Amino acid sequence: MLNLGILISGRGSNMEAILDAIKKDKIPINPALIISDVSDARGLHIAKRLGVPAEVIPSAGSRAEYDTMILDALRRYEVTPQNGLVCLAGFMRILGSEFVAKYKNKILNIHPSLLPAFPGLYSQKQALEYGAKVSGCSVHIVDSGVDTGPVIMQAAVPVDVNDTVESLSDKILSKEHIIYPQAVELFARGKIRITGRRVIIS
Amino acid sequence: MLNLGILISGRGSNMEAILDAIKKDKIPINPALIISDVSDARGLHIAKRLGVPAEVIPSAGSRAEYDTMILDALRRYEVTPQNGLVCLAGFMRILGSEFVAKYKNKILNIHPSLLPAFPGLYSQKQALEYGAKVSGCSVHIVDSGVDTGPVIMQAAVPVDVNDTVESLSDKILSKEHIIYPQAVELFARGKIRITGRRVIIS
Repeated sequence: MLNLGILISGRGSNMEAILDAIKKDKIPINPALIISDVSDARGLHIAKRLGVPAEVIPSAGSRAEYDTMILDALRRYEVTPQNGLVCLAGFMRILGSEFVAKYKNKILNIHPSLLPAFPGLYSQKQALEYGAKVSGCSVHIVDSGVDTGPVIMQAAVPVDVNDTVESLSDKILSKEHIIYPQAVELFARGKIRITGRRVIIS
Repeated sequence: MLNLGILISGRGSNMEAILDAIKKDKIPINPALIISDVSDARGLHIAKRLGVPAEVIPSAGSRAEYDTMILDALRRYEVTPQNGLVCLAGFMRILGSEFVAKYKNKILNIHPSLLPAFPGLYSQKQALEYGAKVSGCSVHIVDSGVDTGPVIMQAAVPVDVNDTVESLSDKILSKEHIIYPQAVELFARGKIRITGRRVIIS
């Protein structure tokens, strides 16, 4: 059974959705460790309530030094490149290319747009300013770029005339909470195969 | 009542969908003229069958000279910037910026992706090579860029593991045939307002 590490910076709502799904849907993965770079992240309380080990690793040092601290913590909880999966869930730091290379194809992220549209920050605002009529969210493999890795799942949401950044974010978030746990389940059950940029789901 | 000009280069399936909807849904717009740059385009036969005037204007001369021939034809059939709408439906030429400026916000196009993703040619192939799990189509206002104008409507389609360029194109095309006539109807009924990049539908 794989060991799962989840990295958060805030409320951890996707973390919660994943942890709930693991329990409810009996996903064969062990929630081994939550890491937050923010000491009072709401997600830490959720982790505690759900009985999942959590560590706060505040931002410090260079990116490489910080990454090493994260890597050390993952190793201690046996979330290794061989038998682990790392999920970014609103984690606001960018992992360095060495980290990403070490956990190649073992790090997932959720992004609030239909990539390749609207990468980077403020995707919902980007979508509204572009005048998109459909947006959505994407679960993707993390590679060394920003929101550039192979896409595992995507879900669309309509953008309405009256949508604000908040209302659009809420709609997208509710889809995130569906597809992110599904992607974790596919990963845990070994149903994902990556060939180049294409993710084949069996 | 507005006069509608439709520019085609091939089978004209979106043209046919629009003409069918005008009749069936009583859209208040007069199908005034079909223009094809290809003399044996299948769409010309459909236009004839449906009793809509059609002209073949083969590619010739510079872009400006060609655009002038199109403009002349539109004028003769009273598809003017004041009381006309021009729909591109698989028209494989790019209109010059003077043409576009003259018919500002009066030219629509359909594009087989969820813009801003996969602009330009071979969008379905681009989507498959990117590994998108959701793609779709967009009706947009034509501005002086390629597939850059304000978006009126979009529709999403799932991309399946086994999709080929052909199967994905077919799925997207069936959505195109729904949203393009809807966008023409919104335009004909004066329900579209454009502010910057945002298209407000009332």
